[in-house]
Amino acid sequence: MPLTQAERELLDQPAFATLVTLMPDGGPQATAIWYRRDGETLRMACGASSVKARNITRDPRVAVTVIDPGNPYAFIQVRGAAEVVADSDLARAEFRILAHRYMGEEAGAAWAESLPQTSDFAVLVINPERTSLTSAM
Amino acid sequence: MPLTQAERELLDQPAFATLVTLMPDGGPQATAIWYRRDGETLRMACGASSVKARNITRDPRVAVTVIDPGNPYAFIQVRGAAEVVADSDLARAEFRILAHRYMGEEAGAAWAESLPQTSDFAVLVINPERTSLTSAM
Repeated sequence: MPLTQAERELLDQPAFATLVTLMPDGGPQATAIWYRRDGETLRMACGASSVKARNITRDPRVAVTVIDPGNPYAFIQVRGAAEVVADSDLARAEFRILAHRYMGEEAGAAWAESLPQTSDFAVLVINPERTSLTSAM
Repeated sequence: MPLTQAERELLDQPAFATLVTLMPDGGPQATAIWYRRDGETLRMACGASSVKARNITRDPRVAVTVIDPGNPYAFIQVRGAAEVVADSDLARAEFRILAHRYMGEEAGAAWAESLPQTSDFAVLVINPERTSLTSAM
């Protein structure tokens, strides 16, 4: 399902996303997280054994919201299916891209370098199935 | 479960919350929404027949996140049970309080006055069961 131009514009701003996954009991779990739009998908990175990665592996249904930093009354909701790509090298590269987006080139590179070498990371790829762009009230 | 002082301080800032409810198929639905802390609960208002109100009536499990407006790397997650109080008068009063919090006294009062008289509204009361205050990465 292609994103609209207005949805792309909101998603391309470096605001934080809220990523919602489902716990083992089906209850919702939500965290603030870096993301970026890559074509028609959203990409994130996280610890390979984080709660969100484990939740998605068990049940791929997610929701993502981003509030427009320039207008808190506008926000996008994305519902879709996520995939966990458990490839630490790929995830480190993704973290570098994300850190650049959110922190700038120099601080982002330093931050990415500081990721612990012994930890396992994963990329999250989210395929939107339904999107809505709306005002909050 | 009492909120910590740091959690109260974050929640008392007028940032928007992301409220997550569960759709009939168990998938997550997330929206940006006004809220306020009232003691140990969070309160919101919405349309009485909105998707979120219907979702909570069917399954009260919700998650709420608020990103610190002063530090996007800090956010709170609240998981708990929500209750729909389908009382339009109470909800209009709640909207007035929320509008004051987010828009200021004068604009908030005008906004609350402009709510359609013929619509039914509801108050959402969220009882936190688990909270976490964390940085995003």
